[in-house]
Amino acid sequence: MKTYLDCYPCFFSQTIKTSRMITSDDRKIREILDAVSLFLPKVSFEASPPEIGREVYRIISDITGVEDPYQEIKERCTEHALSIYPKLKRIIESSDDRLMTAVRLAIAGNVIDFGANANFDLKKDIEMILSQDFAINHYKEFREKLDKAKKILYLADNAGETVFDRLLIEKIRKPVIYAVREKAVINDAVRKDALDAGLDEVAEIISSGTDAPGTILNLCSEEFLKIYRSSDLIISKGQGNYEGLSEENHPVFFLLKVKCPVIARDIGVKNGSIIFMKAKNK
Amino acid sequence: MKTYLDCYPCFFSQTIKTSRMITSDDRKIREILDAVSLFLPKVSFEASPPEIGREVYRIISDITGVEDPYQEIKERCTEHALSIYPKLKRIIESSDDRLMTAVRLAIAGNVIDFGANANFDLKKDIEMILSQDFAINHYKEFREKLDKAKKILYLADNAGETVFDRLLIEKIRKPVIYAVREKAVINDAVRKDALDAGLDEVAEIISSGTDAPGTILNLCSEEFLKIYRSSDLIISKGQGNYEGLSEENHPVFFLLKVKCPVIARDIGVKNGSIIFMKAKNK
Repeated sequence: MKTYLDCYPCFFSQTIKTSRMITSDDRKIREILDAVSLFLPKVSFEASPPEIGREVYRIISDITGVEDPYQEIKERCTEHALSIYPKLKRIIESSDDRLMTAVRLAIAGNVIDFGANANFDLKKDIEMILSQDFAINHYKEFREKLDKAKKILYLADNAGETVFDRLLIEKIRKPVIYAVREKAVINDAVRKDALDAGLDEVAEIISSGTDAPGTILNLCSEEFLKIYRSSDLIISKGQGNYEGLSEENHPVFFLLKVKCPVIARDIGVKNGSIIFMKAKNK
Repeated sequence: MKTYLDCYPCFFSQTIKTSRMITSDDRKIREILDAVSLFLPKVSFEASPPEIGREVYRIISDITGVEDPYQEIKERCTEHALSIYPKLKRIIESSDDRLMTAVRLAIAGNVIDFGANANFDLKKDIEMILSQDFAINHYKEFREKLDKAKKILYLADNAGETVFDRLLIEKIRKPVIYAVREKAVINDAVRKDALDAGLDEVAEIISSGTDAPGTILNLCSEEFLKIYRSSDLIISKGQGNYEGLSEENHPVFFLLKVKCPVIARDIGVKNGSIIFMKAKNK
């Protein structure tokens, strides 16, 4: 997905939000905003939002000297998600379609996204998403692909959400490769976050090779690309991965809750929708 | 009021909104956004939002060659307000406290602000504001000042709202000088808009001498400043005038509906509040 004009104000909102997690010094934040201001005119708007978001995040990191402002929050989200893991497991096991319930919970986990919305109420959101209708639902195609799949790649999104991914991977009952970001960016999961959530017990953890907050193929490592290209089923979690892969001609299934009006318009659904959608060009 | 960090994203939202009224060419709007991006780091954040808003508006105007993108909308707002003028007049005349009702309607007219919020429902808003409690209400002090006032200056805000101002001025029953912007900026009233609303029948119309979307004294003409300084009662409509005069040591009464969370925080009230407040330092 290309960057839309309406992403512009949002880059600044996100900059302020992330900067405030690091400092309460308005002069320092103003310095960051100015640097972002001077950077944006240099960017091609053919670039996708995560490509720009990555640079914005680097500017914040360079000016403040703080590499991972979300570290504590990420750990707290993971701990919180782990504390309800047994309960979530029971919800899945007592449901009629366990795979479907695991898919829904994987989306519920996608609500944990401090980048898009700082106010979230996990319990309420889980209940809502378990009963919410999908705006787009390619579950049947997914099941068919899954039955035949030999190599499954799962693209992680945020820390904490990782615990919910684990629940879905446990229901997939096939070997899964779980890809996280190479370096900290917003609250996206890196290797440590995946390990904290116990993903190593159910999948092979790899890195995308980039610190973009989404899967931007031309920024990914050759090692990752090899696995990506040879996978016959890819589960892509969250908005950032969608933004990077929305035009892909590859067996990608996007699993996300839409939290932004621009992405809602790009997909053609209402903001707040839940989506289980195969890539358009496939 | 100084510019807050949270005004930053809003400058870009406003830029997009105003630009879209002129063109649907995203490349042109991107050019405008880039120019705004390069301009903002040069600005002192001691500047108030209307000082920056003025420059942003000039950038849009310079790049597109369109001087007054809101002209049609302003005319439509004025026509619409004039069409309900007799009805509003009856509401005032049949009320217990006619001056108070006129004050309330003057605030209701402040809802017509395409700069702050494009979606407005005038009839509903009038009904609501006629019954809404003031978050701050210095009406008693205002009446006392008004009784003694010899020179009253009324600072206009938006076109259309002008008709509501006229209703209040009619109830003031003293000579009033009505100040509009010198040149078009957003949907703020200029001389033509005041004339369209019939303000010349109830007041002397003057210009602030500036195209800032608020009363920024160091940008106003000497002629305006002379009148401002010698006035013993000033009625200031809307957010833009508040932003310019919030720190003033002068008998200013601010009459507005708060439509922005930053101004709400600055005043110390909830967003959406209605305010009739004398200047803090007076």
